Amino acid sequence: MFCDAQDRLVAAFEAYEGARGFQAAPWQRPGLGSGRVLVLEDGEVFERAGVNTSRVSGSTMPASVVAKAPHLEGAPFTAGGISLILHPRNPYAPSFHANFRFFGVDADTWWFGGVCDMSPSYGFEDDAAHFHRVLRDWCARHRAGDYEAWKQACDAYFTIPHRQEMRGIGGIFFDHLTDPEDGGFERCLALAADGLDSLLPAYLPILDRRAPMPYGERERHWQETRRGRYVEFNLAVDRGTRFGLETGANIEAILVSLPPRARWSFDLRPGPGTAEASLARFLQPRPWTHPAGHDA
Amino acid sequence: MFCDAQDRLVAAFEAYEGARGFQAAPWQRPGLGSGRVLVLEDGEVFERAGVNTSRVSGSTMPASVVAKAPHLEGAPFTAGGISLILHPRNPYAPSFHANFRFFGVDADTWWFGGVCDMSPSYGFEDDAAHFHRVLRDWCARHRAGDYEAWKQACDAYFTIPHRQEMRGIGGIFFDHLTDPEDGGFERCLALAADGLDSLLPAYLPILDRRAPMPYGERERHWQETRRGRYVEFNLAVDRGTRFGLETGANIEAILVSLPPRARWSFDLRPGPGTAEASLARFLQPRPWTHPAGHDA
Repeated sequence: MFCDAQDRLVAAFEAYEGARGFQAAPWQRPGLGSGRVLVLEDGEVFERAGVNTSRVSGSTMPASVVAKAPHLEGAPFTAGGISLILHPRNPYAPSFHANFRFFGVDADTWWFGGVCDMSPSYGFEDDAAHFHRVLRDWCARHRAGDYEAWKQACDAYFTIPHRQEMRGIGGIFFDHLTDPEDGGFERCLALAADGLDSLLPAYLPILDRRAPMPYGERERHWQETRRGRYVEFNLAVDRGTRFGLETGANIEAILVSLPPRARWSFDLRPGPGTAEASLARFLQPRPWTHPAGHDA
Repeated sequence: MFCDAQDRLVAAFEAYEGARGFQAAPWQRPGLGSGRVLVLEDGEVFERAGVNTSRVSGSTMPASVVAKAPHLEGAPFTAGGISLILHPRNPYAPSFHANFRFFGVDADTWWFGGVCDMSPSYGFEDDAAHFHRVLRDWCARHRAGDYEAWKQACDAYFTIPHRQEMRGIGGIFFDHLTDPEDGGFERCLALAADGLDSLLPAYLPILDRRAPMPYGERERHWQETRRGRYVEFNLAVDRGTRFGLETGANIEAILVSLPPRARWSFDLRPGPGTAEASLARFLQPRPWTHPAGHDA
């Protein structure tokens, strides 16, 4: 399912690029697993895009799982996932990130996890509302889906503590999703499959609106500054990236999430009333699916 | 001493810039301390330069000190330091970093610490040998100075584990330097003062050689890629930066160490035989003060 989704997503993004295509970097580690990195750099629409799948298995449970589930110590496991990152060139088009993953021990012990979040450099209420409504509607189609809880988890996770701001406008974040009842696996699988199918409808209408907008040096400068914050989150905060860096498996695949370029300026504060300054109110938790995205 | 050094260093760097000057950002936190950030951005010679001093004190010892010296639990302390970062514009001129710090409890319990290291994007044997010889000669002038041990500590510290390469060509790193004998404080103070006086002789001759060299887009691209590694080290590895981000004191002063711009490309490998490829052999520990900097 993840590999099929990878092919479909890449085909959709390549349609935006015309001639320029993704390069494939398959990898394999005996005794660990294998994966396929598909990456596009310096495109017309996407300055950097990556879609990775991987499948790993092991004869003993990783320490990070055992810490939360001691009864699984020593059990063999298999895990797989897909992750997606888009850094478009146009500063008005948001960066987009998602991953879906499965972790299995045996027929009774398994779970799914997933994340989808969006990071604009310029805030548009319509974009935020559209993105969150697609996620909300996806969740509503599935018994185990819980948009409100998953949105809250996402807001909390994608926060840069040292800046006291979010990396972007959130989305959904869930983990350890399982269902012990009859047909539970099929229901969770359907939820994940539908989530993967929701990624393009959540993002492409926004890209279609923003990618043609004219911009100049000022907007690129601001975009690079915001991408600096993206780097701060991924390298200094993100548990997944930090775990990947510590275990050392396939650094380039892990760091494909970083933006193509980033910039730091000392104590940069956008002038009051500018479009740049107004981003700040997008970087705090807000009920985006409510009418006009306003707080009650 | 640190504040005097700050003024002298900034005056020296401003002499390179002509009209453009450093902006001052003093800060004060009641009950914690105060400091002065001096920062220059977008200069002719320095794309980003920062010289910070700070002085903090507290009625109870920080946890990080108590962890290593349990007998100091609950003791009041005072600490001060200076840190310096230079990111020159010319890709052939290396980035330069140093800090000196003092930590005091009472007349018998105090120590100095210090770091000086250099991070070139292009390797020059002459630059590395000059830089390390100035540091070696400074250490040799002081009874407590130990260039070989401090170089080894620096090589180990400025390593990016997930890349298995150093951030640059090392330098010196020492901490908890004290001297319980008569006149010990004065001797350590003299060592630190001489270290501060050695920074300009260690760096400026290299800057003088490299800043006038012609360069183009290719060299800027490579410089930004190397600065990406600098960011990876500072945000994901550096204990000082991570401690600062976690405690949240004056984020902008902490992150002034980051380069002005950075770039990430997927699995970038410079072509064999290029100047970019030859940097790799500079990013491993080497005995730079030996003739021609070659290994035995």
